[in-house]
Amino acid sequence: MKVLRHLLPSEDLIYLGDTARVPYGTRSSETITRFALQDAQFLLRQDVKLIVVACGTASSIAIDELRRQSPVPVIGIVEPVAQAAIQATQNHRIAILGTNATIRSRAIEREIRHLDPAAQVHGLPCPLLVPLIENGYLDPSNAILRMVLHEYLSNIINYKPDVVILGCTHYPLVSAAIQQYISARLIDSGQAVAQVTHQTLCERSLCNDKAHKGKSIYYVTDTVANFTGIAELFLGEPTDGQIRQVELG
Amino acid sequence: MKVLRHLLPSEDLIYLGDTARVPYGTRSSETITRFALQDAQFLLRQDVKLIVVACGTASSIAIDELRRQSPVPVIGIVEPVAQAAIQATQNHRIAILGTNATIRSRAIEREIRHLDPAAQVHGLPCPLLVPLIENGYLDPSNAILRMVLHEYLSNIINYKPDVVILGCTHYPLVSAAIQQYISARLIDSGQAVAQVTHQTLCERSLCNDKAHKGKSIYYVTDTVANFTGIAELFLGEPTDGQIRQVELG
Repeated sequence: MKVLRHLLPSEDLIYLGDTARVPYGTRSSETITRFALQDAQFLLRQDVKLIVVACGTASSIAIDELRRQSPVPVIGIVEPVAQAAIQATQNHRIAILGTNATIRSRAIEREIRHLDPAAQVHGLPCPLLVPLIENGYLDPSNAILRMVLHEYLSNIINYKPDVVILGCTHYPLVSAAIQQYISARLIDSGQAVAQVTHQTLCERSLCNDKAHKGKSIYYVTDTVANFTGIAELFLGEPTDGQIRQVELG
Repeated sequence: MKVLRHLLPSEDLIYLGDTARVPYGTRSSETITRFALQDAQFLLRQDVKLIVVACGTASSIAIDELRRQSPVPVIGIVEPVAQAAIQATQNHRIAILGTNATIRSRAIEREIRHLDPAAQVHGLPCPLLVPLIENGYLDPSNAILRMVLHEYLSNIINYKPDVVILGCTHYPLVSAAIQQYISARLIDSGQAVAQVTHQTLCERSLCNDKAHKGKSIYYVTDTVANFTGIAELFLGEPTDGQIRQVELG
């Protein structure tokens, strides 16, 4: 949302956070797909011209079904991060950090191998990172965060990737902490997805007039009050009271 | 479930795990109440004679509304753990470990003060314990579990409680690790709730004939496959293929 707003100042952005049912990354593929379809149906009722699946888990598991059912373009993180990783790597050794469901799906791994058959890819599930980040463990000097990152990243250090994909929207918040353990280039899914979104809108002549000042509206499925802390953590723009609760499913 | 089966061998037990929407402990009171009512409605359709709310969060937040809407008795963890704590304490200093929502509600604290106006009560939110336990960090010698427990429990050590309530179904799995930091008597909500359930069934002449061999059926809202790991962790009885997926809400 933050990068999209920066890249696309003329676009109206409609955000949906399924805060009553997160996290998706611990659930089965069937449930993730069911929830993601309900999310998309809500957005389509708002008459959107394009859907961005910013969630790494929903992108990895549900994107094919979303595209089958959506009349508008659907952009997930899989292709953008794979392309960015291929462009950035020099030794063709790429690691992916993600939720259990994202890594289990192998979706990003398959896309990388499709683009670069010579690439070696290592997927690493990091299930404690989302709860740590949501509970504010962001400081690179925090001992608990460091110990968890050390435990996870020690699995890929010997593998010597020169690019590490942050396959979950939460992970950029601990980039600095991750870089203490691994000097590889980090690929931020938000950045990669926003660039592809920008490009897709231009290619399809879907961009708003540049004179238009884009608005942002936030919908959440848990209460608005419950969202405030997370919003401040992630969004980096004032939400100006434009948050509403909706019921899905 | 484990303690109930042991105490009530003649009763048929119907388990509902809302695995597609856990954890409840991070959500707003409104959402927790809405989900808990949907859970209870499902159980009432199975023609149950009594409902046990084994979840500390749902018990603390939603029990009044559940009781208002249920034609059968509803037993939560609040009164049973408060009674057990009062019986066990000698210095009238009681600590409660729970999810954010449970501690924020102050429900257990209020019940203890109601039973023992002289009691001093300290509620301690422990939001990382559920994800740690669900990811298998149970070993008392595990460095990450130890560091998290040290961070949480250092807030109550000087307070010197002689009783600590484990206000969440997950926490008994790390009892041994907790006892490394605090020598207080631990109150297990499962044990306390099962005893009150037994007593309530007897008092209301709701017990099954002793000759009946009680059956157990498990319902979950995410897939059956997704439940298997957690089931082995918690239930301690073979589920014998008696697990079915249902859709709520």
